[in-house]
Amino acid sequence: MPRQVDHRQRRAQIAEAVCSLVAARGLEAVSLRDVAAEAGISMGRVQHYFRTKDEMLLFALEYVGERDVAGTRRDLAAVPGAPPRTVIRTVLAGLLDTDPRKVEAQRVGVAFLARALVEPALAAPLLQGYEGLQVLLEQAVRQAIAEGTVCATTDPRSAASEVFALADGLRVQTLLGHMAGERALEILDARLDRLFGG
Amino acid sequence: MPRQVDHRQRRAQIAEAVCSLVAARGLEAVSLRDVAAEAGISMGRVQHYFRTKDEMLLFALEYVGERDVAGTRRDLAAVPGAPPRTVIRTVLAGLLDTDPRKVEAQRVGVAFLARALVEPALAAPLLQGYEGLQVLLEQAVRQAIAEGTVCATTDPRSAASEVFALADGLRVQTLLGHMAGERALEILDARLDRLFGG
Repeated sequence: MPRQVDHRQRRAQIAEAVCSLVAARGLEAVSLRDVAAEAGISMGRVQHYFRTKDEMLLFALEYVGERDVAGTRRDLAAVPGAPPRTVIRTVLAGLLDTDPRKVEAQRVGVAFLARALVEPALAAPLLQGYEGLQVLLEQAVRQAIAEGTVCATTDPRSAASEVFALADGLRVQTLLGHMAGERALEILDARLDRLFGG
Repeated sequence: MPRQVDHRQRRAQIAEAVCSLVAARGLEAVSLRDVAAEAGISMGRVQHYFRTKDEMLLFALEYVGERDVAGTRRDLAAVPGAPPRTVIRTVLAGLLDTDPRKVEAQRVGVAFLARALVEPALAAPLLQGYEGLQVLLEQAVRQAIAEGTVCATTDPRSAASEVFALADGLRVQTLLGHMAGERALEILDARLDRLFGG
């Protein structure tokens, strides 16, 4: 089915163009015309896939969400049988990654977050992403408790929620420039030091 | 100087209109025309004070920042001689307040945050606000260490940064709907329980 593959590739190409533009200029500066130019295809072709800007943004958000989840899974697969602390650290440090491509994804994430507050259709895929990470973190804390590396009186859900919110706050403060990326990782690691055997 | 007062009042009235619209529809949907309608004044009068949308947004951001700081100071003044934990809790719970006016300010804050990532002129007042809260939190942790309510080996800067980032992450996750406001306060309080005598 070469046509099928072509459609998927074309939509991915458009989504990548949306992300580059959103990271550089914000959501409001992105038009179908700009995206066509950035992706190097005709305006008509963009409109063939997406009738409105909102449709295009929603697809780009889902695309970037899936790309990020796939990236996290790849990071985790790179350390098979990793102890829970490594899993938690990998997931949360991913939010603070200073690799340019990750920073772009984080900037896009904040842009969509702001838009989702006033456009509930955009909140759904974001919430799904949050829920997925929350589950992953909770499982890791439960496993750590079972293995005895985290204190048995710890509530897995609360511990997972706390470190997740901490990393999310560090992400926002790092992107804005309130905190350096290395400093954010130090604070995250100090928190994990206390969770594991503190 | 009635003219002076009138100018200040008029600009404040415009800033309040900007905030209502940004909270309801996001930054991109706000035009000088909409703001004039929301504030109940003529378009020409808005343009008399602000030549461009960006000028108007910058003023509204500074205005809402000063209003928030004044609100936090009022909250703190309501508990004179408050112990450091009360100071820290008041500052951070302010970020998670579910009072409609506070939620509006938080939504406006996230909208401006997203815009500041691509518009450095808007980052300056936001960073100033972050710096102000950071200093306040550090002072409170130092005082708590001096009074013996926080462990003497605690690094005040790191502890302040951690609880601040935690509250900021909880704010974002609460606004998006990933977490209920009450749950966010529980997680914050559990963290403060550990900082103070844990």
